[in-house]
Amino acid sequence: MKILKNKSYKVLITTVPFGDKNPLPLVLLKKAGFEFLINPLNKKLTEDELLQMVPDVDVIIAGTEKITAKIMDNAPNLQLISRVGIGLDGIDLNAAKNRGISVSYTPDAPTSAVAELTLGIMLTLLRSVHLSNIRMHDGHWQRFFGKRIANCTVGIVGVGRIGSEVLRYLKSFNVQKILLNDLHRKSNIDKDLNVEWVDKKTLYKNSDLVSLHLPLTPKTHNLIKKDELYLMKADAALINTSRGGIINELDLYNAMKMGHLSAAAIDVFDDEPYKGKLIEVERCLLTAHMGSMSADCRARMEQEATEEAIRFLNNEPLKGSVPNQEYDLQQHE
Amino acid sequence: MKILKNKSYKVLITTVPFGDKNPLPLVLLKKAGFEFLINPLNKKLTEDELLQMVPDVDVIIAGTEKITAKIMDNAPNLQLISRVGIGLDGIDLNAAKNRGISVSYTPDAPTSAVAELTLGIMLTLLRSVHLSNIRMHDGHWQRFFGKRIANCTVGIVGVGRIGSEVLRYLKSFNVQKILLNDLHRKSNIDKDLNVEWVDKKTLYKNSDLVSLHLPLTPKTHNLIKKDELYLMKADAALINTSRGGIINELDLYNAMKMGHLSAAAIDVFDDEPYKGKLIEVERCLLTAHMGSMSADCRARMEQEATEEAIRFLNNEPLKGSVPNQEYDLQQHE
Repeated sequence: MKILKNKSYKVLITTVPFGDKNPLPLVLLKKAGFEFLINPLNKKLTEDELLQMVPDVDVIIAGTEKITAKIMDNAPNLQLISRVGIGLDGIDLNAAKNRGISVSYTPDAPTSAVAELTLGIMLTLLRSVHLSNIRMHDGHWQRFFGKRIANCTVGIVGVGRIGSEVLRYLKSFNVQKILLNDLHRKSNIDKDLNVEWVDKKTLYKNSDLVSLHLPLTPKTHNLIKKDELYLMKADAALINTSRGGIINELDLYNAMKMGHLSAAAIDVFDDEPYKGKLIEVERCLLTAHMGSMSADCRARMEQEATEEAIRFLNNEPLKGSVPNQEYDLQQHE
Repeated sequence: MKILKNKSYKVLITTVPFGDKNPLPLVLLKKAGFEFLINPLNKKLTEDELLQMVPDVDVIIAGTEKITAKIMDNAPNLQLISRVGIGLDGIDLNAAKNRGISVSYTPDAPTSAVAELTLGIMLTLLRSVHLSNIRMHDGHWQRFFGKRIANCTVGIVGVGRIGSEVLRYLKSFNVQKILLNDLHRKSNIDKDLNVEWVDKKTLYKNSDLVSLHLPLTPKTHNLIKKDELYLMKADAALINTSRGGIINELDLYNAMKMGHLSAAAIDVFDDEPYKGKLIEVERCLLTAHMGSMSADCRARMEQEATEEAIRFLNNEPLKGSVPNQEYDLQQHE
């Protein structure tokens, strides 16, 4: 711990918007007496952009941008990366550990916001609401047939915090069958849900709706490529509100262009802001990484990450330290 | 009953699509030996269009088009209107009664499909999914802040079949407060839901989300005009998946153009196919009367309405006769 009590610490906030709806985190930082800078480019930073901003920074309150070994080597004062949110794929955790940089996150804060969004997308995607809305605003009246979720086999890949919350929300809808896949079977699944634990191939083959709730790690990167997409039913719907990089975007584009899948909903992308070819696919519902963008969850994430930064700079114990298993997950096989 | 056993009966099917996903109703009609014609214009019929089609018709398997006294007077053989669905606002029930024409409907079949669609729209409307999708497909990355339904006060106007099902689906989401309004308080509301019965004004004033689940009757026509819209919170969201004519469309357009309401979702319109000014309002989610358009519900509605027609023409007792109270509701005050 190289923290000196009489130094004025510099906090860089890279995630935007920040303190926008609720200024509490900014008030907390001011009160604590720390200098801070909010990402002046107001967008997700590239490695080069971030490189310019870090030389005198003690703490980064971070978003999903890449924080690589190169960034860390350009930030000799950097002591803590306090991640606003849950995903750690942007941060080279083991590079941080090797340099004595602590990493914290707010894993519980986004859960409900992402799960609610997922449920809404599940129900509307099955009914082509996004297509009808575009047609209507273009002056065309077209009634789309759809499916009710109750009659679907719903496949959930990843039954962690968010996947479990999605299951809780699904309970009211009397879904006929839910297929689950995770590294480890969870024992706390509601007995009223008609679930079955299956391998991924079985899940892809038999689900009408596949929803991903996974972290991005070397093991999940490109998990869903052409082969996996074509295991799915021709009229299946695919949802990713977890992390970009898990579905191969070009393979998804090619499959949908060929008429495969009835619909998809993608909230997260390899490169954000996304400008890729899925934009051409009308039946692919696209949103701008909005899983955690409910006012309450965003406020909670920002507040927790800020409080963690303040605890750290005040030499108080951390509450949101990233556990060792997350470091292990990032080790390449 | 003027039915003659040796006559070849003519059935006109006005609602489209019909027998499209599931041809069973057409098979049933053929097997029963009845002539039938599916609306050749493949759209909701105007009074004039329908007038041309009815002179020799014995039964109409009807959609939402207007079936007026004038239509009935041009259809001397008409004995039964068998409505595919629940709404009876298109049919002049008392004119039918005065002419000895029976009317049946399928009030339970659409319930789950409409309620599922409503839940999906509630959850996505609060998160501006429709706006982000349009922006993304235009090449613009914009992250919208939203609300979680758990933190909202949800107002349900009309707690009949569909409103009650919406309440059942809401149960998983731990909504902080639900305001209910109906002509009569219902006693079968789940005890775990935090509901309060209030008058309409209180509901409009205090809800973050207002969802309508009403029939169109003289009492509900134009229920929500400028005054009611401006009782609502400036950032409230308004949903109508029930019937056109309940919200004054021009007043809604004007209010939203002035920046009032954070969003609206309208699935039903005064005149369908809709071509009105709400098309200009991007934050108004528009769908083409798709509440009942799930494959299973549509199939059930079509089958029930067809079986009713066959029962009638075979002189068997009806199962879906419209109850007297529906006739009373259409009496002008």
